[in-house]
Amino acid sequence: MSDIKKYIEENKDRFLNELFDLIRIPSISSISDHKEDMIRAAEYWKETILAAGADFAEVSPTKGNPVVYGEKIIDPSLPTVIVYAHYDVMPVDPIDLWKTQPFEPVIKDGKIWARGADDDKGQGFMHAKAFEYLVKTNQLKCNVKFMIEGEEEIGSPSMGEWCEQNKERLKGDVILVSDTGMIAADVPSITVGLRGLTYLQLEVTGPNRDLHSGLFGGAVANPINILSDMISSLIDKDGRITVPGFYDDVLESTPEERDALNKAPFSVEEYKTAIDVKALHGEKGYTTIERTGIRPTLDVCGIWGGYAGEGAKTVLPSKAYAKISSRLVPHQNNEKIAELLKAHLESIAPEYVKVKVDILHGGQAFVTPIDFPAYKAAEKALQDVFGKTAIPTRSGGSIPIIATFEEILGIKSLLLGFGLESDAIHSPNENYPLENFYNGIESIVKFYEHYKG
Amino acid sequence: MSDIKKYIEENKDRFLNELFDLIRIPSISSISDHKEDMIRAAEYWKETILAAGADFAEVSPTKGNPVVYGEKIIDPSLPTVIVYAHYDVMPVDPIDLWKTQPFEPVIKDGKIWARGADDDKGQGFMHAKAFEYLVKTNQLKCNVKFMIEGEEEIGSPSMGEWCEQNKERLKGDVILVSDTGMIAADVPSITVGLRGLTYLQLEVTGPNRDLHSGLFGGAVANPINILSDMISSLIDKDGRITVPGFYDDVLESTPEERDALNKAPFSVEEYKTAIDVKALHGEKGYTTIERTGIRPTLDVCGIWGGYAGEGAKTVLPSKAYAKISSRLVPHQNNEKIAELLKAHLESIAPEYVKVKVDILHGGQAFVTPIDFPAYKAAEKALQDVFGKTAIPTRSGGSIPIIATFEEILGIKSLLLGFGLESDAIHSPNENYPLENFYNGIESIVKFYEHYKG
Repeated sequence: MSDIKKYIEENKDRFLNELFDLIRIPSISSISDHKEDMIRAAEYWKETILAAGADFAEVSPTKGNPVVYGEKIIDPSLPTVIVYAHYDVMPVDPIDLWKTQPFEPVIKDGKIWARGADDDKGQGFMHAKAFEYLVKTNQLKCNVKFMIEGEEEIGSPSMGEWCEQNKERLKGDVILVSDTGMIAADVPSITVGLRGLTYLQLEVTGPNRDLHSGLFGGAVANPINILSDMISSLIDKDGRITVPGFYDDVLESTPEERDALNKAPFSVEEYKTAIDVKALHGEKGYTTIERTGIRPTLDVCGIWGGYAGEGAKTVLPSKAYAKISSRLVPHQNNEKIAELLKAHLESIAPEYVKVKVDILHGGQAFVTPIDFPAYKAAEKALQDVFGKTAIPTRSGGSIPIIATFEEILGIKSLLLGFGLESDAIHSPNENYPLENFYNGIESIVKFYEHYKG
Repeated sequence: MSDIKKYIEENKDRFLNELFDLIRIPSISSISDHKEDMIRAAEYWKETILAAGADFAEVSPTKGNPVVYGEKIIDPSLPTVIVYAHYDVMPVDPIDLWKTQPFEPVIKDGKIWARGADDDKGQGFMHAKAFEYLVKTNQLKCNVKFMIEGEEEIGSPSMGEWCEQNKERLKGDVILVSDTGMIAADVPSITVGLRGLTYLQLEVTGPNRDLHSGLFGGAVANPINILSDMISSLIDKDGRITVPGFYDDVLESTPEERDALNKAPFSVEEYKTAIDVKALHGEKGYTTIERTGIRPTLDVCGIWGGYAGEGAKTVLPSKAYAKISSRLVPHQNNEKIAELLKAHLESIAPEYVKVKVDILHGGQAFVTPIDFPAYKAAEKALQDVFGKTAIPTRSGGSIPIIATFEEILGIKSLLLGFGLESDAIHSPNENYPLENFYNGIESIVKFYEHYKG
């Protein structure tokens, strides 16, 4: 057994207890009632970094939730790794679908079950523990800086400005991030592309108050029907988004790139079975891997209006709402797409309703090269731990801040994630296998061993 | 001042206090938590009828909420009027739009503000007080029976069976109902037509759990988008409902009937201003009065799915729901239309989702003749009170049980309503003008004076 394996074995109960205390803080960034929990989670991370061996750590304010910054500088002439993670989590709705309490982690079937178990408390915590091991055993061969933010799940609205303000102390060679997934528990992969995101809220107002659907129905436009018409018109029968200009800047993949992408192990049948659907649906002319990897999308993430209670209430509602998100690919600009979408929604609204479109957040798509030193070090680390060569993959998800890091700090990121599709991040019953948690710590330790900057 | 005017003047504080105690009982029939309130409201009505002078009254059980039955039989050879009203009310959502507590009535600007102030506690109570006056002053010249139900707002699911079981004691000449509106506070009208109703709930299921919209978006059909497509397809660009067979049994009005209907005093501009919309929208080729009076409709009364909280949650939801209602006209059969709608929704659902359609309730459309004795008596009564000839109108609303009464009991109904459009029934800030309450009592007293059976 390697030294790091032994260290994990001897300390795993403590590791889990410490992680569980972090998970128990309900740090939901999108709900303002949780402001104090954000501070508590940030303070907890600061203490974690200091206890692990950092020379310095602080909770650094931003105009939103604070960023935890910490560092251990061995020798300024050595390479520097900046670890990025986030302490905020997604909301827990629909709460009734959870089989356990979202903020009371339990271990069952070899997995941690809780909101944030994977995204990104579990994955972030692996870095604290890998760092602890390297410091305690005097094996750290580079400088390490931590920046742990509290607004990733709402699009990192304060992080860009914070990076600008802290540019001086954020000098480094690579940003190391574990906030993505791997193909399977025994199939290591490194994420080389992420989609961008734009997220809007649409409000459709018909009459100035809820009306009796009998007395007014048929004569007054119903905002729910109108909202449905508008949403329905956004995607055509071939699964293409109808917003003018939407595809203009899309980087079309070459046939060779598409072939390579489609060589990743993937079973349509298993995919369908896992989510229990009879048929898949997406843009015509593309495979499932392509649809989530290299193609932009449009999804309604939420819709509401009128009566949603028990039984039958006959109402012609005043308002209807939808939350609409669009995943973007290189070289779509998220701000441009947000404006295109907003203008399009305003233009298709019929005269008998009023619409209001709010842009809630967004981020750029991102592609990383596979020939830079950090990639090579990660590849070797995963070979050590899994005995297999890592597969470069594109993830359909978005980490909007990654593109900003490169833009402001001029530093590339390496996405070394250990999540699984079955981890149900952003969903009820989020979980993270202990195996992935331990393999992640080990892989990160190996990364530092191989990384020469 | 007439005797009844004097009686109202001397007793109005007591009338209002008694009505307010009824309103304070939150008897919402569509929400099962209110079961006990239904019983309390029924008991209150029983006491009200007895106190007003009935020989007998009881809370009569049904498979759902009980019916209050009461009677005063003067002479079996005299005509018998059966008063129908309902003690149940609509839900109060959205509660934050109420300016007062829905179940704590207040008087302001000459109106009673509360849920049920008009529909149908306020209007129903007028009958108890008119009856009280006639009994106390020994002027009652016919037999009176009361049947006050507790499930009108959910489509009267138990009332038909109760009528069957009580057929013997429900013999009578006319059913008198105040659960509709009048054209304006000084323009009396009698409702001669009501639309029918069918009400469905549609559930669309995509994947078996909420998915991350980044990881899966674009490759898996989103049930909210699909639901929007389905709803959008139900009405064409001319405002016509696309369900095959939907219009087959619609009784087309003659040009003469349409002309007569369009002669009712009505201002499109005032109508638009009152509800604050720039343009009206409905079936092509019909006026607003026709669209709500003689044409069937389809409205989504509620829609929900995915994330509806604060901020941006990126989720591809598992389920989306809609409550869909359709107002029907003679001779559409509500059960047939419900089945047509259900079959159509099932048929248009694409293979990548599952749909479930529940028929929640329904009722037949209804037309009453204007040449039967009760109509004539009502016309004279309104002439006495308002000094104007009542206008026969068609209401877009539905009282599903009215058609059932004729079918089971063989008795026609007379819809003598005193509500105004501004009463906001089924909406926040329901209200009922005191003027209409007092004029209603007086008109009912006059009705009994003129009615000879």
